[in-house]
Amino acid sequence: FLRHVRALSTSARQLQNLEVSLTDSVLKIQFNRPEKFNAFTLDMYQEVGSVLNTAAKDSNCVAAMITGKGPYYSSGNDLSNISMMAKLGYDNAGKVLLDYVNAYIDFPKPLIAAVNGPAIGIPVTTLALCDIVYASQSATFHTPFMSLGQSPEGCASLLFPKIMGSSLANEVLLQGRKLSADEALQCGFVSRVFEDSQFETSVGKLVKATAQLPPQSLVLSKQLIRAPMMAALKDANQREAKLLEERWQSEECAQAIAQFFERAKKKN
Amino acid sequence: FLRHVRALSTSARQLQNLEVSLTDSVLKIQFNRPEKFNAFTLDMYQEVGSVLNTAAKDSNCVAAMITGKGPYYSSGNDLSNISMMAKLGYDNAGKVLLDYVNAYIDFPKPLIAAVNGPAIGIPVTTLALCDIVYASQSATFHTPFMSLGQSPEGCASLLFPKIMGSSLANEVLLQGRKLSADEALQCGFVSRVFEDSQFETSVGKLVKATAQLPPQSLVLSKQLIRAPMMAALKDANQREAKLLEERWQSEECAQAIAQFFERAKKKN
Amino acid sequence: FLRHVRALSTSARQLQNLEVSLTDSVLKIQFNRPEKFNAFTLDMYQEVGSVLNTAAKDSNCVAAMITGKGPYYSSGNDLSNISMMAKLGYDNAGKVLLDYVNAYIDFPKPLIAAVNGPAIGIPVTTLALCDIVYASQSATFHTPFMSLGQSPEGCASLLFPKIMGSSLANEVLLQGRKLSADEALQCGFVSRVFEDSQFETSVGKLVKATAQLPPQSLVLSKQLIRAPMMAALKDANQREAKLLEERWQSEECAQAIAQFFERAKKKN
Repeated sequence: FLRHVRALSTSARQLQNLEVSLTDSVLKIQFNRPEKFNAFTLDMYQEVGSVLNTAAKDSNCVAAMITGKGPYYSSGNDLSNISMMAKLGYDNAGKVLLDYVNAYIDFPKPLIAAVNGPAIGIPVTTLALCDIVYASQSATFHTPFMSLGQSPEGCASLLFPKIMGSSLANEVLLQGRKLSADEALQCGFVSRVFEDSQFETSVGKLVKATAQLPPQSLVLSKQLIRAPMMAALKDANQREAKLLEERWQSEECAQAIAQFFERAKKKN
Repeated sequence: FLRHVRALSTSARQLQNLEVSLTDSVLKIQFNRPEKFNAFTLDMYQEVGSVLNTAAKDSNCVAAMITGKGPYYSSGNDLSNISMMAKLGYDNAGKVLLDYVNAYIDFPKPLIAAVNGPAIGIPVTTLALCDIVYASQSATFHTPFMSLGQSPEGCASLLFPKIMGSSLANEVLLQGRKLSADEALQCGFVSRVFEDSQFETSVGKLVKATAQLPPQSLVLSKQLIRAPMMAALKDANQREAKLLEERWQSEECAQAIAQFFERAKKKN
Repeated sequence: FLRHVRALSTSARQLQNLEVSLTDSVLKIQFNRPEKFNAFTLDMYQEVGSVLNTAAKDSNCVAAMITGKGPYYSSGNDLSNISMMAKLGYDNAGKVLLDYVNAYIDFPKPLIAAVNGPAIGIPVTTLALCDIVYASQSATFHTPFMSLGQSPEGCASLLFPKIMGSSLANEVLLQGRKLSADEALQCGFVSRVFEDSQFETSVGKLVKATAQLPPQSLVLSKQLIRAPMMAALKDANQREAKLLEERWQSEECAQAIAQFFERAKKKN
């Protein structure tokens, strides 16, 4: 896998569940499991993290964008992760999460998320770590952490209140309120919403234009903007990952997940 | 009084100026002086604080809501407080304020405010310390601190700029701009507005649903969200209470309050 | 110049590029180079800074407002500044910037910006350091720092994300997205927008009313509101000025400015 990533600047690569390309100085990461609504496997955490860390050092990449293939941006954790995490050990699973989120925190170039459709869970929380978030009209933002007996990650506990105001952030994080694209625009979580039919083209132009700006100005200005938050972001990531390790092993979480499967079974 | 509060989990209680109940794991605190627009006496500060502190430790309470009886949420400080504070000593009055606000800061469970009508003064500022704020269409938010020669409390000096942006926060806190429910929604100070006729029912459902979520997930997630602000909240409360103690004893404040009474007399 | 400023409280003064008056306890600073769209010369940085610092200590001034003469608020740095800065030395130019921004940070009384038309560059960033920002319908807000190979100043790197949310702030600061008055209202950057024809009158009334409030309440409350940010503001100003000193001497910046002049030449 790493060999593929190291070769990033010379050609587009199809990883297992990602499509990665570098065109016009733009690194494009596309979640590529459309048949599973781009649900995140543990491998994908590591793949995305590695691609970001590699692109951080690659001077051919001036800006990066993240998007999903098909109608979903990403439905969040793949159900297989539950058993995988038990096998891997919860401390190791926590480390996977920690490293994934740190890859977003540390990425030094403009990072633009293009939310092409519904997003659930960690693909929502990590949006606040992207510099700019665009949404298509069909995008939704849903973090049902409580109903699964879990807790926020991706620095959402720190950033959502800052971006949305505390009341809406707590509705989203504690009550699992799902935001529409327009609601996300209204509260400042995304800054542009496009019609689905024009989404890819419109975003493509904006990202390309960004990557044509002076690279050093971009990197140094992003650093300036991030600097006052950096320690708090690292700290939030640590605290969130630690709490989730505990939650995953809690009785409450086990029961909530069992109830989730029961509800899902009844639906079918 | 404390005996009443200690018995909280077993039954609903009618305190002097509060109605307190515990149903479906929801503690409901209702300001209950409708004939005085729910104006706050010094006793009420202590009653609300004690109820919150007691409910914090009561496992039968999963979430709490605060609302007002009648057309007002609360018109703020009762006029009798002016002479009461002089009698009590301004340092003791400052301590009452400090403890009251700390009860909001420290409450560990979801705290939801249901602003059923106009709110003035400290009932407005402490909303920002609630996790979620709902408003009825007839709610308004007014903090005329300057025209009374006073200064902000309830951590508003810290939280209003974070929630509303600095320009609107300063209009509200320094110029006494009164916000409508829709303006409060627009700026993120509240996150849902309901028609007056549907307010109680709609809020009731949302609060009940919150109290059915896994309690430990709620408490630990709230703790996570609050953690980065906790020291700053305590500090803001200290500084605000200290400044108000000084303001209450200032010539400027005495004159402003005298002018307020003159204006009120002319109106009648 | 300083003699003029020292005499501030006794009469209105026409400085070289500023019109300064003190009426009804309101200090009014008006950028006065309408034929140059109120472009900022290095002298103007020092003039505005000195006027603010003087008014800070003048008890006849209770509140201050800043606005522009003619159709523009201010088009930002005058093109002459580029050669002036080289002559002055970039460290000295950085010091001029640092002192100018500190005059905004340190101003202890209500500071109200009345953005009467388009604003570009540092006249935009310093708005976030004003307590209240009003805009006329024709106002726009544009910070094309990246396309000139530069970086944000005026504490914008700290304050824009706090006010607008990170996504829009990064569009504005990194992509140079220009905001309309309504967009600036929507995101909380300004808190009132008026029709152009009513702008001066409406703002005049609001500012005058502010200056009639109890002066000590205003000063102490502003201090309370600013206190939690003060160290971070000073720090942001330092980091921003230092980075700009480096940018001004960079190859990238020189090229970007050369390209800007080429584009401007082609237009004519």
